[in-house]
Amino acid sequence: MISRVENESPQVPSYLNTLYPHVGTAYRIGITGPPGAGKSTIVDQVTRLYRQAGKRVGIIVVDPTSPFTGGALLGDRLRMAEHYLDNDVFIRSMATRGQTGGLAARSQEVGDVLDAAAFDILIFETVGVGQVELDVVEAVDTTLVVLVPESGDDIQLMKAGIFEIADVFVINKSDREGASQLGHILDQMLALRENDTEWGIPVCMTSATRGTGIKELLRVLESHHEHLQKSGMHTVKRRGRTRQRVERLVSQGVMTDFWTSERREALEAGLDASPPYELARVILEMS
Amino acid sequence: MISRVENESPQVPSYLNTLYPHVGTAYRIGITGPPGAGKSTIVDQVTRLYRQAGKRVGIIVVDPTSPFTGGALLGDRLRMAEHYLDNDVFIRSMATRGQTGGLAARSQEVGDVLDAAAFDILIFETVGVGQVELDVVEAVDTTLVVLVPESGDDIQLMKAGIFEIADVFVINKSDREGASQLGHILDQMLALRENDTEWGIPVCMTSATRGTGIKELLRVLESHHEHLQKSGMHTVKRRGRTRQRVERLVSQGVMTDFWTSERREALEAGLDASPPYELARVILEMS
Repeated sequence: MISRVENESPQVPSYLNTLYPHVGTAYRIGITGPPGAGKSTIVDQVTRLYRQAGKRVGIIVVDPTSPFTGGALLGDRLRMAEHYLDNDVFIRSMATRGQTGGLAARSQEVGDVLDAAAFDILIFETVGVGQVELDVVEAVDTTLVVLVPESGDDIQLMKAGIFEIADVFVINKSDREGASQLGHILDQMLALRENDTEWGIPVCMTSATRGTGIKELLRVLESHHEHLQKSGMHTVKRRGRTRQRVERLVSQGVMTDFWTSERREALEAGLDASPPYELARVILEMS
Repeated sequence: MISRVENESPQVPSYLNTLYPHVGTAYRIGITGPPGAGKSTIVDQVTRLYRQAGKRVGIIVVDPTSPFTGGALLGDRLRMAEHYLDNDVFIRSMATRGQTGGLAARSQEVGDVLDAAAFDILIFETVGVGQVELDVVEAVDTTLVVLVPESGDDIQLMKAGIFEIADVFVINKSDREGASQLGHILDQMLALRENDTEWGIPVCMTSATRGTGIKELLRVLESHHEHLQKSGMHTVKRRGRTRQRVERLVSQGVMTDFWTSERREALEAGLDASPPYELARVILEMS
C-alpha cells in the first residue's frame, strides 16, 4: 500500500478513506537539522529504546534532493541493519519522483498507512533544512532540531525557520568542544522569544554514536507528547494537518477541471504576446 | 518597485504589465550549490569582470531559510562592499516572508524589474540546494552548479536534482586536494548521460578568492548564452518560465474565488469527522 501511495495509484483515495478510522493513535516525531549532524544515528538510538519498551516504530526518511525512492537505499541506512530483521521496525526512504512535488503530502499518507497498521511511533527524518523538509517535520506532533557544536559558528542555523518549528533542540556530538557554549547561545535565544505556550523548549545534549543522552531525550519526547495532549494542542496540530491536506486535494481537483483545452490553447497562444498578469486575467475571464 | 513586488502590493500587476515591453534583454544566470562552496565569492568576481566590460549587473540573493528580506543584509554580503558605491551594480537579498511561499516567483518578478531597468546581467544566487533554490535557478538562462573538491566524497551532491539543472559545473577552491579527481568523476558522470542537446556541459575550475579561472568561466557563460540564442533554446526557456508564472497566477485567482465562506465552513465542520479525500470530494461537489 505504501508503494501505491508513492506511485499515486488511483485506488489511494478509497484505501485511505477505509483506513481513516484506524489512523490517529501513533505519536509522530519529526527530526531535522543540517547534513552531518547525526540525525540518523539519533533515530537509530531512539528506535532501539522504543523497541526495548515494546513500541512498534515506523521510520520515514524524506530526501527531496534524491530521485531514489523505496526501501531504505541511502548509504547511511546501512547502519540500521540491526532493525531489518525486526518486523516491528519499518524503514522507508522517500524521494522526489520527477518534478511533481507533493513529497511532504505523500510522506504523511505513508505515515497514515503505518499509523493504521498499529505502529506506535512514527519518526519522520529529513536530510536537510529546505522547505520540503520543513513541510515534512511540521506535519508531526513533536519536532526535533538537531545541531552540532560547530553549528554555533553557523549563522545559517540560527535563522528563524528552524527556531519557529523546534519543540526540542538536540545538540549532538556534545562531547566535542563548543557544545555547552552552543547550549548557552540557544538558551539565550530561546529566552528572548515570546513564549505563547506553556512548553519551554528544552535543549538536550546527546552523543548518539555512544548512546549518551538518548534516555533523557526520550523522557523529553514523552513529556512533550503529554503536554500536547493535556493542552489540547494535539488536536489543534492534527486538525491543521488535515486542513492543509484537504485544501491541497481540493485545489488539485479544481485546477484539473479548470484547465480545459480551450484555456490551455489561450495560454499557449498568449505566451509570446502578453505580459503574465494580463494573460492570467484573460484566461480567468474566459467562460 | 522591488519593495512593492516583495510586499505583493496590489499595484504590482499593473506595474509589471507596463514594464513588460522592456523586459527580455537581460542575460539571467543562476548559481547554486552546497553552503560553503564559495558561491558569493564567485558572484563577486564575475560581477567585477562584467563591470570591467561595461555591463550593468543585478544580483538577487535568494535565501528561503531566512526571514530577513531587503537590501543585502546577510553577513557574507559584506564582502560585496566594493560594489555598493557602484550605481551599475544592484544587490538585493530576498527571503521567506512568513509561510506564503512564492519566493521563486517573486525573485523572478524582481528580475523583471531590473531587466526593464536596463541591467544587462542578472545573477540569481541561492544559499543551498533545496526545492525553492532549484525553482529559482531553473528560472534562468544559464545555471551554474558550484562544487568544491570535498564534494567528491559527498554522494548527496551527485544526486540527479543537481545534474538535471546544471548547464555549467564549477569546481571552486580548485587549488585544494581532490579537485582534478572530482573533475574526472563529473566528466564520467556527464559522459554517461544521454545528451539531447548540442551543449556539452563543461566543468570549470576556479579559485574564486584568488580570482583564478574566472575569466575562463565568463567565456563559458558567454558561449552558453550564444548557444541558447542560436539553438532557439533561449525562447523555449523564456516561454516555459512565462507559462509557469501564468499557471500560478491563474491558480491563485481560481482558488481565491473557489473558497467561499460556505466551502470554508464545510471544511472546518468536516475536519474531525471525515477522511481527507472524502472531505475534499464533498467540498468539490458543493455547488
